Amino acid sequence: MEIKTYLNEQRLVVEGALEKYMPAAEVENGLFSVHIEAMRYSLFAGGKRIRPILCLAAGEAVGARPSLETDLLPIACALECIHTYSLIHDDLPAMDNDDLRRGKPTSHKLYGEAGAILAGDGLLTWAFDLLSNSEKSKLLPEKRLAIIHLIARAAGSLGMVGGQLLDICHENKEFPFETLRAIHRNKTGALITASILAGGIAAGADQAQREALRRYGEQVGLAFQIVDDLLNATSTTAQLGKAAGSDACRGKATYPGFFGIEATRQKAGAAVAEAESALNIFDAKADPLRAIARYILTRSH
Amino acid sequence: MEIKTYLNEQRLVVEGALEKYMPAAEVENGLFSVHIEAMRYSLFAGGKRIRPILCLAAGEAVGARPSLETDLLPIACALECIHTYSLIHDDLPAMDNDDLRRGKPTSHKLYGEAGAILAGDGLLTWAFDLLSNSEKSKLLPEKRLAIIHLIARAAGSLGMVGGQLLDICHENKEFPFETLRAIHRNKTGALITASILAGGIAAGADQAQREALRRYGEQVGLAFQIVDDLLNATSTTAQLGKAAGSDACRGKATYPGFFGIEATRQKAGAAVAEAESALNIFDAKADPLRAIARYILTRSH
Repeated sequence: MEIKTYLNEQRLVVEGALEKYMPAAEVENGLFSVHIEAMRYSLFAGGKRIRPILCLAAGEAVGARPSLETDLLPIACALECIHTYSLIHDDLPAMDNDDLRRGKPTSHKLYGEAGAILAGDGLLTWAFDLLSNSEKSKLLPEKRLAIIHLIARAAGSLGMVGGQLLDICHENKEFPFETLRAIHRNKTGALITASILAGGIAAGADQAQREALRRYGEQVGLAFQIVDDLLNATSTTAQLGKAAGSDACRGKATYPGFFGIEATRQKAGAAVAEAESALNIFDAKADPLRAIARYILTRSH
Repeated sequence: MEIKTYLNEQRLVVEGALEKYMPAAEVENGLFSVHIEAMRYSLFAGGKRIRPILCLAAGEAVGARPSLETDLLPIACALECIHTYSLIHDDLPAMDNDDLRRGKPTSHKLYGEAGAILAGDGLLTWAFDLLSNSEKSKLLPEKRLAIIHLIARAAGSLGMVGGQLLDICHENKEFPFETLRAIHRNKTGALITASILAGGIAAGADQAQREALRRYGEQVGLAFQIVDDLLNATSTTAQLGKAAGSDACRGKATYPGFFGIEATRQKAGAAVAEAESALNIFDAKADPLRAIARYILTRSH
């Protein structure tokens, strides 16, 4: 399997589905066109689509059936909506105050702060609209409710939103490594793990499979965050599409800040190895998940 | 029925349930305590709880059964979480820039802009956590999914969030009355109507009952907004608990601005009469809904 080809193909599948599932600027006679344009701008401003792709790959790992992709895509797209909303709000002047994201102006630079806050609010709410839309899914209602609850818990105050506030509160402060772990686990890890578990649950994962997917998700999320820290510390702005070195400027604690570059690379490698070992109970259908874990590591070099 | 006593009793029921359903500052060893405190501050800063009370009253109108209140309360509380999040975000400097809400400092005055944005994000997400939490509800999964979808649609880009952007975009501009209707219908009407319909669906409303509740909801939402406009134009800041006359200062179009005070009062009365007539198919169990509609009107004098 050529991982880059796979990721590219899956990215296009996700983007096609997003195009289909998002409201068009023309709905309601264009009443909401500016707002919908703002949501679409951030949603289609690039991005690796890693959460939706992990969701699809976890579904594949548990077992394919003809309608699986159709059932998974609304979930995958909802996850991307939530991720995008979190980036829009994180970039706001009151938070990280970033002007660039993926090499393009951030939402508030184009739509103003109010427009950006509402674009984020709209995307978050649309995620739950999509997850609960019975025209879009043939999954059993019980399963869909479990998936909604899993995602809401991971995205909310006891997960991503809580992690973002922790992150902000600890800028320019000394704190122990355990706090950095808690920030990562909540701010980025929780939604990544939920993306993988949601795909597994939709595909009918049993208890042992769910547990394996959870362990895989936690380690992949950790590796992902460590590599993000590494890239921020070692890349140029042009390579990154956002301000390089911004973590250090802002007094954000990072893995390289605690352990240095080399030991941090080793920790990323260890997390990926643990992620792979969590998948031992799966057969070759989990190869995409395995390849994604290894691919995350290559981004750090 | 003494409406003030009823509203007060129901408010206490809702507040008791909110207390039970919201996370405590101590969860996760207090990791998220500041954030949870910020959410609770706004949620418990007063408020009429009109959306949750309408939800409970609509359930009663359709028909009581022993477990009805238990099934309705998570929905009612989720609606109040969504309403509160919308107030927190509306009050932000980038939006209405209000320092006072219900006579108390607004969220960003106490928790900073980042803290307030995240408190709003947290409350919105918690609403969907609560609606999808199977430990909190014995309603059929199909019904719960339908209610989640109804609420997400009403709260999102094609409802409340879209309406808020419309409102902001039209400040200090001339526009026709139809635009004011569209702003009201989406910014406040959509979630009020959804609150009523959600209660009805949970209680098993048939098609005709749903249609009647929708008509009631639209007219009550309209009356509510007209009376808000009237109060803003005619009260003092002390009476209102927020800056009086702020609509006119900000160049916001209002019903009194289009029609003058007296004709606006008449329009509020007409909306309430239409709301009552929509309830003709219901028996005395709908008396609370009828009394609430009439009560809204008394606030305008």
